[in-house]
Amino acid sequence: MDLRRTFAANVTRLRAEKGLSQEDLAHEVGMNRAHLSEIETGKAYVGLEILGKIADALGVEGADLLKKPAKASAKAK
Amino acid sequence: MDLRRTFAANVTRLRAEKGLSQEDLAHEVGMNRAHLSEIETGKAYVGLEILGKIADALGVEGADLLKKPAKASAKAK
Repeated sequence: MDLRRTFAANVTRLRAEKGLSQEDLAHEVGMNRAHLSEIETGKAYVGLEILGKIADALGVEGADLLKKPAKASAKAK
Repeated sequence: MDLRRTFAANVTRLRAEKGLSQEDLAHEVGMNRAHLSEIETGKAYVGLEILGKIADALGVEGADLLKKPAKASAKAK
């Protein structure tokens, strides 16, 4: 189980769905773009505080950011 | 939104549902009981790695540990 990667993928997907750049979301969350980039590439350590702030900025629940992608998108060719 | 508290409450609830003591769960996760106690009282900083290990030990998904309690149990008298 790689929660960090799941989280990263969800943040990238939801951010794109909202039409936000990394710069936009980083600004909203109060972090710099480089840090958000590390989060989205699964490099940064992520704690609940950051997770909560990103969820708020994206307008979703914290739990939504840890949900695994639907099977269709995970293994579909 | 207080994710740390939601997480803490979910861990305590799920652990009790499985009939595990803090000692049991801490051992399963590979941390000491004092650390788990701090997590369950919302005092400890929690990162995705710890969250993932606890979810594995409890047999649930990481996202389940961040779900808010159902309204009924939250405000019911």
